[in-house]
Amino acid sequence: MANITKKVSWSSRADESGVTAEGTPLLNGSEQPRPSRQESLRGRPKEIPHNEKLLSLKFESLDYDNIENQLFLEEERRMSYMGFRCLEISRWVVCGLIGFLTGLIACFIDIAVEELAGMKYRVVKENIDNFTEVGGLSISLILWAVLNSAIVMMGAILVAFFEPIAAGSGIPQIKCYLNGVKIPRVVRLKTLVVKVCGVICSVVGGLAVGKEGPMIHSGAVVAAGVSQGRSTSLKRDFKIFEYFRRDTEKRDFVSAGAAAGVSAAFGAPVGGVLFSLEEGASFWNQMLTWRIFFASMISTFTLNFFLSFYHNKPGDLSNPGLINFGRFESDSGAYNLYEIPLFIAMGAFGGLLGALFNKLNYWLTIFRIRYVHRPCLQVMEAMLVAAVTAAVSFTMIYFSNDCQPLGSENKEKYPLQLFCADGEYNSMATIFFNTPEISVRSLFHTQAGTYDPLTLSLFTITYFFLACWTYGLAVSAGVFIPALLIGAAWGRLFGILLASITPNGSIWADPGKYALIGAAAQLGGVVRMTLSLTVIMMEATGNVTYGLPIMLVLMTAKIVGDYFVEGLYDIHIKLQSVPFLHWDAPATSHWLTAREVMSAPVTCLNRIEKVGTIVDVLSNTSTNHNGFPVVMQGADSDEPSKLCGLILRSQLIVLLKHKVFVELARSRLTQRKLQLKDFRDAYPRFPPIQSIHVSQDERECMMDLTEFMNATPYTVPLETSLPRVFKLFRALGLRHLVVADDVNRVVGLVTRKDLARYHLGSHGLEELQLAQT
Amino acid sequence: MANITKKVSWSSRADESGVTAEGTPLLNGSEQPRPSRQESLRGRPKEIPHNEKLLSLKFESLDYDNIENQLFLEEERRMSYMGFRCLEISRWVVCGLIGFLTGLIACFIDIAVEELAGMKYRVVKENIDNFTEVGGLSISLILWAVLNSAIVMMGAILVAFFEPIAAGSGIPQIKCYLNGVKIPRVVRLKTLVVKVCGVICSVVGGLAVGKEGPMIHSGAVVAAGVSQGRSTSLKRDFKIFEYFRRDTEKRDFVSAGAAAGVSAAFGAPVGGVLFSLEEGASFWNQMLTWRIFFASMISTFTLNFFLSFYHNKPGDLSNPGLINFGRFESDSGAYNLYEIPLFIAMGAFGGLLGALFNKLNYWLTIFRIRYVHRPCLQVMEAMLVAAVTAAVSFTMIYFSNDCQPLGSENKEKYPLQLFCADGEYNSMATIFFNTPEISVRSLFHTQAGTYDPLTLSLFTITYFFLACWTYGLAVSAGVFIPALLIGAAWGRLFGILLASITPNGSIWADPGKYALIGAAAQLGGVVRMTLSLTVIMMEATGNVTYGLPIMLVLMTAKIVGDYFVEGLYDIHIKLQSVPFLHWDAPATSHWLTAREVMSAPVTCLNRIEKVGTIVDVLSNTSTNHNGFPVVMQGADSDEPSKLCGLILRSQLIVLLKHKVFVELARSRLTQRKLQLKDFRDAYPRFPPIQSIHVSQDERECMMDLTEFMNATPYTVPLETSLPRVFKLFRALGLRHLVVADDVNRVVGLVTRKDLARYHLGSHGLEELQLAQT
Repeated sequence: MANITKKVSWSSRADESGVTAEGTPLLNGSEQPRPSRQESLRGRPKEIPHNEKLLSLKFESLDYDNIENQLFLEEERRMSYMGFRCLEISRWVVCGLIGFLTGLIACFIDIAVEELAGMKYRVVKENIDNFTEVGGLSISLILWAVLNSAIVMMGAILVAFFEPIAAGSGIPQIKCYLNGVKIPRVVRLKTLVVKVCGVICSVVGGLAVGKEGPMIHSGAVVAAGVSQGRSTSLKRDFKIFEYFRRDTEKRDFVSAGAAAGVSAAFGAPVGGVLFSLEEGASFWNQMLTWRIFFASMISTFTLNFFLSFYHNKPGDLSNPGLINFGRFESDSGAYNLYEIPLFIAMGAFGGLLGALFNKLNYWLTIFRIRYVHRPCLQVMEAMLVAAVTAAVSFTMIYFSNDCQPLGSENKEKYPLQLFCADGEYNSMATIFFNTPEISVRSLFHTQAGTYDPLTLSLFTITYFFLACWTYGLAVSAGVFIPALLIGAAWGRLFGILLASITPNGSIWADPGKYALIGAAAQLGGVVRMTLSLTVIMMEATGNVTYGLPIMLVLMTAKIVGDYFVEGLYDIHIKLQSVPFLHWDAPATSHWLTAREVMSAPVTCLNRIEKVGTIVDVLSNTSTNHNGFPVVMQGADSDEPSKLCGLILRSQLIVLLKHKVFVELARSRLTQRKLQLKDFRDAYPRFPPIQSIHVSQDERECMMDLTEFMNATPYTVPLETSLPRVFKLFRALGLRHLVVADDVNRVVGLVTRKDLARYHLGSHGLEELQLAQT
Repeated sequence: MANITKKVSWSSRADESGVTAEGTPLLNGSEQPRPSRQESLRGRPKEIPHNEKLLSLKFESLDYDNIENQLFLEEERRMSYMGFRCLEISRWVVCGLIGFLTGLIACFIDIAVEELAGMKYRVVKENIDNFTEVGGLSISLILWAVLNSAIVMMGAILVAFFEPIAAGSGIPQIKCYLNGVKIPRVVRLKTLVVKVCGVICSVVGGLAVGKEGPMIHSGAVVAAGVSQGRSTSLKRDFKIFEYFRRDTEKRDFVSAGAAAGVSAAFGAPVGGVLFSLEEGASFWNQMLTWRIFFASMISTFTLNFFLSFYHNKPGDLSNPGLINFGRFESDSGAYNLYEIPLFIAMGAFGGLLGALFNKLNYWLTIFRIRYVHRPCLQVMEAMLVAAVTAAVSFTMIYFSNDCQPLGSENKEKYPLQLFCADGEYNSMATIFFNTPEISVRSLFHTQAGTYDPLTLSLFTITYFFLACWTYGLAVSAGVFIPALLIGAAWGRLFGILLASITPNGSIWADPGKYALIGAAAQLGGVVRMTLSLTVIMMEATGNVTYGLPIMLVLMTAKIVGDYFVEGLYDIHIKLQSVPFLHWDAPATSHWLTAREVMSAPVTCLNRIEKVGTIVDVLSNTSTNHNGFPVVMQGADSDEPSKLCGLILRSQLIVLLKHKVFVELARSRLTQRKLQLKDFRDAYPRFPPIQSIHVSQDERECMMDLTEFMNATPYTVPLETSLPRVFKLFRALGLRHLVVADDVNRVVGLVTRKDLARYHLGSHGLEELQLAQT
């Protein structure tokens, strides 16, 4: 049996040395001579940081397919039926824990924000009240701006210096993770801590942000942590849930965590489940969904329960989420058939505004990637935004003369009188001088006439630009609430205008309804979520009657918005050059087959391979392959070698670390017996190959891969069309798919990057290039 | 090239003649000699009609995997991007139509039931009122019983004589269809007509049934019809939607139809989507889900809109479903933490009662299969049940002395005074003398004290047995509402008892809350649905606050019930011996591999095959295979023949029908060019092979299968474990999975029946037997 690494290709060039880098597009069919490694590296484009026509090679994939090697099968076969039942019960327990902890975190954030923001607003309000009469309001402005900047600075320092991945809402990152892309550091404990502290600082600091998006990320981190039964950061291993230490199980739990996060944020357990499924799961499994739902329910319930104590109404479970849109009563606010065209028009407008928002944010993000990449610059930008937000708010309030009577039914928490008469308050301050959540609710529910049209239009314009500037700063913050707030403002404005231009204005009497529709339209135009967003809005308003209009609005917003530019999260994913797999292959890709799509030639290993060869293959930084087909020479020496398995880099590294070698001199029996536990202990942070020392003697030893390789990898023939390959890959959550010829020889390997390369651009099917970053 | 059919096996027995029937279990590994056809037929068990240890061979599977042959690929490659966009738009249009028509049907059923039942109740009430004073109430009883029997008879005759598949709720059949099993006649127009008329008769006839379950079946039929753009029954082809004439697309639309049905029945669009996904879809696709949601929304909206005119409140969209539980206000009815253990106890009780219900119904069904299989007997049984139901109701009302004041807030539609004082009405009659939907709402919402505990307990017991007897009759009827009604009755009873035994009864003051929980528990105990049922209940009550308790209750009911017996639908599916695939392979099946599971040897065809051979293979009634691997002889004659494709019986039949033969004397060019259209026109009712005449001359011709076979079938190696095979099969919705050896020779074929055979019984992994029925 040959001891050298065999590079197999489907032509007669099996003895070709060196491997072709994945990056070379191979659209010309198989008969073309392939460029050598050096050529292909030279041809590979340099990464330009903001080029969305590139796919980064730095992202690894998750394995959603079980690695069914002998060790695994033996363990499964040993396990009794009761063993499987216990596993199932522990999955439920883990999901319950995930929900509980996510709810607790949401509760902590809510209380912290409410207390700190209350403190801030009281100080500023007292200051403004004091200076209104005597003049010198500029001191109030400075106080406000400095307070905000200081608070935001803390958050930005945490994010920029300690954990940059905690910036933003985290939804793009979680989308990628659930899609099967391993984003480094995204589900670590440190990320969670920074995220939670960061989001408190951003919201208290008065930025145009929400605390809802980060909850989804927080839930996901909680899930990834709890399900593993240990914390690598804290170096504690509780020796529980060891069975769950693999990508398949972990990803299921992260889905549950994300759902629990949505559920806690919006009080929308069903919406949370649908969010997870819409963004993540490809294979729908009944039990999994049911567990996700359980986690969501527990999360809402926990938040509700603890907040009821905080609000001094113990046992009152009517505060299901961080944001509560307030109940829309169906009797008063039901819509009529002839309003539906109006709603659709609002949806189209929301789509337009959303596209504008995304486009502006896209340019801003490119600017930031180019010029604002140093942490201290990022902190300074965040502080600047905070100060400007305070200044703009102050100016708007100062020059507004929209005074409203301070009635008994008005429960303004911080009514600013400013220049209004006694017993009146400044209406502009209601929206600016509050956390955004309270402003949204106020726009939805206060009676007609509370807001002046001028106030609303000014607010819409300023807040639009502020929110757009804010998203993408190095702070933890979500875009849901700002988008809802902008939409609610222009929606309400629309309702007021409608009432004023129609002769019988009373039938359009409810501007809150239009505020709700506007909010949905704007949010839909920005994030382009559909089913889950409809359900979230339905659950957050506690009303199913608005289901149909909200759905129509979201659909219109998505269609209109998609015409101009992609959704905000997709833009940010693309700018990171993440190899993201969509639901289906591009529609017009039937003319591509596995032959064109696959990477070839492939580095294969023999079933019994020399340690030195393995070390060399793994150390080859130019290719950095993660999966290697294992081949076996036929009995006849001139017979081609057949595919007999697939082994991962991580497995080989564990084997090397434990020195599972067969010395040539000794019999096979001396090979140390490795357990699944050894692989699980190393999961998920496998050491790099450079950290493993292999002596010259050991390099001469052999390694038997039979027990550890996946002996039944999925294969496709060369002529399989791209949509078919895509469907197999996506439905099973694969990481490597072997392409075999008609006598079962390895001719290529399809990975996520090979599939993600193809996308529908404006000129039909386009191919992205791969780049080392 | 050899012109004979080659029977390939992985051993050297490639020349073995005859094919092994699928039914023979091959657990002993591959080395055993296989029994010949005669032997295996003899060994095959005779079907005993009610033996749930058998799987019937009569059910074919649906192909959820696209048949990617050359014709298909050519069509896809010809299609432009705009073509795909148009297709996508027509999918939306079809879904909109499905929703609209389903809503209309629901509306029709609702109005018909309301009018006819109203007429009936008025006649009976007048009669009773007349005879109460003068005596001779037995005449009223006879009138009532005869009326009911007559109406039920009409429904039963329709079902028993014209379309037996329209019996029952149709949910088990739709579950099977979505699972991928082709149930004959289930989505035909005739079935729909019989179903709709049948359900009106059953409900008006006063049986203990609901009209909600049949809506799901109706929606599915509408979807299957509309999406095909033609009606085979009416012999009309509108020449539209021809692209959708294949199993893949049709099944997607049927999911949408089922969802629209749920949505119309319960006013629960999200619940409908989840029902479809929970029961059917294995591969979650975002766009599909969104379309399903659209169909659901349109369906609810249509129903709502037309009913608003019927109820003389045009434009009032607050009647979203056939059943409306009425709004539970969260302020009044919120639960407390300490009530949760009570809810869980109720869930357990519901699970117990549900298991009892299912067990009784199981015995009853076996009795019916054995003794009540003739249509006229079935009609007579239905009439008997109708008469008994009327008699029992009458007796209960007659002997009840639970009189309630006829207050102004009581909106009794048909208040029976009977022996009560003037200004009072008989409370027992409120539940019995109404359609079940109104009774459920009354139990949920009337204030405490409306019902006497004795009334409720008597009602629970009688209705339990009546409903149990009724389900499975040859009438169209659902079990949702009866189960809800039983649960609501004992739930309310529980609430009343709780209030009476606690010292401070007022805190348990709301029996309606316990009625809701009881209803959920009972329904969950019977049907064992989980996620979708929670959402349906949430949407039907318009309240998300009860989400957590309802979920806990349903979960408890499922766990407790599953301990004793399966869900009602699963029982009926099993009694039909349907090869139903569950979500996962049995937990302890890792020791089985494709080698043991597959059927072998397989009947293979050559790429260029003799027509006579094909006709013989297709006419072989003992095997009745539906998929045939296509093999190709290697260049070298002693080389084994390799797998090169897969072709279906239906495709071969179309080829034979169109006489796509290559005559030996002529060149290949004379072969008639077949279009995809020819296959689509024949879909889905392909003629049997016996109807196709092939002359002796034609038998000598050759047929080239290259263009028509699926050239890239999925394959697995022999050593693949059963869970892995199962996952591939289920995730991709396959019909045939080829098992190949390490040089790509066909060694076996895995079909749905091979996988459905294995299930977890009380003694660990059990194997069902296959039977010709």
